[in-house]
Amino acid sequence: MAAIIPVSFVGAETGPYRVLRMNTVVGAPLASVAAVTAHPVHLTPNAAPGAAWILRGTNSAVRYVERAETEALRAVQPALGRPNCSHAALIPIRKSDAWWTLSQDERREIFETRSKHIASCLAYLPAIARRLHHGRELGEPFDFLTWFEYAPEHAELFEELVGLLRATEEWQYVDREVDIRLLKNS
Amino acid sequence: MAAIIPVSFVGAETGPYRVLRMNTVVGAPLASVAAVTAHPVHLTPNAAPGAAWILRGTNSAVRYVERAETEALRAVQPALGRPNCSHAALIPIRKSDAWWTLSQDERREIFETRSKHIASCLAYLPAIARRLHHGRELGEPFDFLTWFEYAPEHAELFEELVGLLRATEEWQYVDREVDIRLLKNS
Repeated sequence: MAAIIPVSFVGAETGPYRVLRMNTVVGAPLASVAAVTAHPVHLTPNAAPGAAWILRGTNSAVRYVERAETEALRAVQPALGRPNCSHAALIPIRKSDAWWTLSQDERREIFETRSKHIASCLAYLPAIARRLHHGRELGEPFDFLTWFEYAPEHAELFEELVGLLRATEEWQYVDREVDIRLLKNS
Repeated sequence: MAAIIPVSFVGAETGPYRVLRMNTVVGAPLASVAAVTAHPVHLTPNAAPGAAWILRGTNSAVRYVERAETEALRAVQPALGRPNCSHAALIPIRKSDAWWTLSQDERREIFETRSKHIASCLAYLPAIARRLHHGRELGEPFDFLTWFEYAPEHAELFEELVGLLRATEEWQYVDREVDIRLLKNS
């Protein structure tokens, strides 16, 4: 739980996850690529020749989740790497200055009390595994990189979750979002 | 307020701040150096030849401060760089896994409700300027790097603030702390 998990997502011509589609939801797009690779380190550009882009983040301590929610999440959320999960999504987002100037209690109020981010996700988590990475402190172009894994039969469920989050008040503070859908090479 | 401010503190033989003393409060020490320089970027080791150490962090959004506290802090906290503030301190700390596995509400409870971190600091802030930098997401050895600036006549006041924080329940979670006192070259 307290571990620091660094990651670099590299977009390039080849890699273990093939890009099914890339969709710019809001803000500037990312260059189109054919494949994505996740590396468990913070790569510098010269360490990834041929990369169209490198997105870096760190999975670390929770920022909004309270104790009862931690227990509820722990009871339902699956691990990454389940063998039946051939589908994946990488969704980088950035939030606006208006979000980051809010105090902690104001952000929690929007995030959970009004947008029900955690409560909504709970219903989907038995099917959809995910890991959140923070990029803001690294000076990255995206504040968050979320990685999702799910089985083909849960593709519609995943669309539902993404649609639900994008309709929240919290998402009004998202000023850049790219949605990258992936298929694991078999 | 929403700006990202990166910093690298470099310990070396020369620099604009001369080390008055370095004191290991808990955990592993840092190599003794004669001077410290703050650079407003994230330096890699090959960009700072001759450095005994480089500590990197980012000043970013608040993690515990609520709206009323934001207003109270804004009303009293001075900017860095006041001409009469020849004294400075760099205090890198790391918190234990026990801290980082806590939920957000449990950390806030210890940080403010029981340890009164913000309320205590408020009384000292008109005299003491400070900036907090987060290093945990960068994979740095210290989770926090706090930089303080104060005038010589407030040196005792600063000792009082540091002593007060170290006596809190919050500080029981600090498993590495080095206290570096500095004097600006005139």
